[in-house]
Amino acid sequence: MSKNTIKPEILKGFRDMLPEVMNNRLKIIEKVRAVFERFGFVPLETPGLEKTEVLTGKYGDEGSMLMYSFKDKGERNVSMRYDLTVPLARVVAQYQDKLPRPFKRYQIAPVYRADKPQKGRFREFYQCDVDIVGSSSMTSDAECVFVDCEVMKALGIKDFEIRINNRKLLNGFIESIGVVKEKFSDVLVAIDKLGKIGEAGVEKELNRRGIADDKVKLIIDFLKPKGEDNLQILERLGNIADNKTYREGFGELRDVINLVNEDDEFADNIKVDVSVARGLAYYTGTVFETFVKGYENIGSVMSGGRYDKLIGMFLSQDIPALGISLGFDRLYVAMDELRLLEKKFATADVLVTFLDENLKKEYFKIAKELRNAGIKTEIYSRPKDKISKQLSYAEKISIPYAVILGDEEMKRDEVKVKNMKAREEKTVGRDKLIKKIKDSSD
Amino acid sequence: MSKNTIKPEILKGFRDMLPEVMNNRLKIIEKVRAVFERFGFVPLETPGLEKTEVLTGKYGDEGSMLMYSFKDKGERNVSMRYDLTVPLARVVAQYQDKLPRPFKRYQIAPVYRADKPQKGRFREFYQCDVDIVGSSSMTSDAECVFVDCEVMKALGIKDFEIRINNRKLLNGFIESIGVVKEKFSDVLVAIDKLGKIGEAGVEKELNRRGIADDKVKLIIDFLKPKGEDNLQILERLGNIADNKTYREGFGELRDVINLVNEDDEFADNIKVDVSVARGLAYYTGTVFETFVKGYENIGSVMSGGRYDKLIGMFLSQDIPALGISLGFDRLYVAMDELRLLEKKFATADVLVTFLDENLKKEYFKIAKELRNAGIKTEIYSRPKDKISKQLSYAEKISIPYAVILGDEEMKRDEVKVKNMKAREEKTVGRDKLIKKIKDSSD
Repeated sequence: MSKNTIKPEILKGFRDMLPEVMNNRLKIIEKVRAVFERFGFVPLETPGLEKTEVLTGKYGDEGSMLMYSFKDKGERNVSMRYDLTVPLARVVAQYQDKLPRPFKRYQIAPVYRADKPQKGRFREFYQCDVDIVGSSSMTSDAECVFVDCEVMKALGIKDFEIRINNRKLLNGFIESIGVVKEKFSDVLVAIDKLGKIGEAGVEKELNRRGIADDKVKLIIDFLKPKGEDNLQILERLGNIADNKTYREGFGELRDVINLVNEDDEFADNIKVDVSVARGLAYYTGTVFETFVKGYENIGSVMSGGRYDKLIGMFLSQDIPALGISLGFDRLYVAMDELRLLEKKFATADVLVTFLDENLKKEYFKIAKELRNAGIKTEIYSRPKDKISKQLSYAEKISIPYAVILGDEEMKRDEVKVKNMKAREEKTVGRDKLIKKIKDSSD
Repeated sequence: MSKNTIKPEILKGFRDMLPEVMNNRLKIIEKVRAVFERFGFVPLETPGLEKTEVLTGKYGDEGSMLMYSFKDKGERNVSMRYDLTVPLARVVAQYQDKLPRPFKRYQIAPVYRADKPQKGRFREFYQCDVDIVGSSSMTSDAECVFVDCEVMKALGIKDFEIRINNRKLLNGFIESIGVVKEKFSDVLVAIDKLGKIGEAGVEKELNRRGIADDKVKLIIDFLKPKGEDNLQILERLGNIADNKTYREGFGELRDVINLVNEDDEFADNIKVDVSVARGLAYYTGTVFETFVKGYENIGSVMSGGRYDKLIGMFLSQDIPALGISLGFDRLYVAMDELRLLEKKFATADVLVTFLDENLKKEYFKIAKELRNAGIKTEIYSRPKDKISKQLSYAEKISIPYAVILGDEEMKRDEVKVKNMKAREEKTVGRDKLIKKIKDSSD
């Protein structure tokens, strides 16, 4: 390497999405977007950079530490997008007169977190969010659960479980056993780690955070699954505590479950789980997580909840809201494990080769005819390469068909079509080419 | 406003894309992507943040000044994505063994420039690029011109002009009139401004940059359009200068024109224009710009060219390459002027209203039936709102149909369908609802 060259390197924790991966990612996004729109959510896009003061104080202490914040050339404090929910809250507050209420929007965009890179965790990753702003009705919570179900279905994931809970129910329970209010969020943070660190871990964590042993025991017992179905769980939960917060949370959870239980297709995928807490500070009611069965270790692939106080941080009044966020990378890993992804580099179905440079105008004509017929067609870009090299290119990137036209074929108004996988070559009339490709692709 | 609220503000030069705009943007992106894939380009995505040293020194002095650069928490010098071409060059150099050659990729992503905000110029904007890496054949230059034409066609822009030139031809001409090599890029920068500042402006600019009057006169004369067609221009250009660079540039331009001239559909849209220079420092051969007729003041909506030396900055050898970049915002403005955009907030075709909360399970069933039939259906999110409020919501965001179900309809197994635009209401059997909506939407 000459001493003047710059080393072609990517930043740690960041990724290049090469075509085999991108082809899959784009298909996933397309399917997710189709579901979002089928539910009538409308698209919104917020900037990749925001005023730092707009973002800070919403994600908890950890969140603020992980933000990509800096001073721009005008000495303004700016931060890269950290999630899609806080920018939505800003938008709702900023365009109050322009936006309808309810406002049901979706956004699909990369977010940035200066987290410690590790397996499956990156500093840039996509979020796909739907949110309903301006509704306090539990029908909206149920709807979000159904969006979740339909996304899983659209992606071909049949075996999944949505675990649903309510923050008020949790808080009400914690209150009922005599934990002081200042410790509520500590307890939630500990509970949220159950999946990762297990029961013993949560016990330790609660102790460490100053919760007395008798209370720890009650909490652990509350969280333990008891092998009941949703209605049995609800029946039991109805008698556990009786303060206002608990009763509200219980009522909300029951309303959501009553609605989702009516759905023949998905009722069995939805499970009340009082150990679901969610990490983010801003949740206030319904919370839920989604696991791909057999791959629970990947973590929740779609999570959401209600955050009735967040938008109020930008306004003088609270606006109820809730939403779901799809964890793109986790979902990708799960789909890969389930063999739902295709490893394909090419987008083209046909490669038009250059056998004879004098015929280049013909090659362009053929390519245009094929494209006009809706067939994705690449024209080989290095006319001077040997035909064997051109064909191995088609093979390497998995283009299924190659079209070859030489002097002989030209005279007879024919072309050769090579099926790259079957390694067969057939000669057809020029006017039959489109039909030949279309028939073979079926 | 209470004193604790945070002002909901966006950064200067940045935009929120509200649904009316986003619906259009997504449609444009979909169409553009379809054209890119129809030509066999494959998708790539590079990160929003790169090592600063990877980006600097590629865009010219102005470029480096406009980058969003900062130190991350690990004290690394990082910069936000400034364009899609330099990251592509890095990728090609970094994954040499993994990527095929030729490598034909597309990328659609936002880029960031700390430019002075002004009408139509933003600090975050989308680029849609296709590039062909590893080809020095003029068939690739012609192909890029055709991609450009097909994008215009797919977007419904019939009246457009692609102005094409060659940097070598320009440099060769400048050399032939005795300008010293060190001044070449100065002259190009001045020529590039012709569209903005006119002939007199370019004269002044050239004088200011130390070009002698006699040479300025020759340059201005060279640039002047002479009302010829492409073949006449080529004939004239063939005799203007005779150095190696000029002859190469002339030969390349002629080869491209000979190919594009064969295309019955688009030949008339493509025009040789020796005043096209392009601003970016890295172009080496073919350069072209695209104007929407009658809206030339918007500037070039799709521009491109060959940059045979750029990738070599990361490697010990040069790799020929070329590409096109679509200027999303300019194109959007042009399409708006041409009335090619729809102002529609909603994505849903049907709103299922809540007339009676006791029937909420029915509303969910109806919504699911409609969605399963491929009809985009929103379920109203505030069941307690009056029906009149629900209907005005549908009207406000332009949802074409509302479905209403009350006790009476329920008993008769019917629903009411309200056409929001025609303000008519019809009662149909539940089993006829899908057909009714589908027939009405045709």
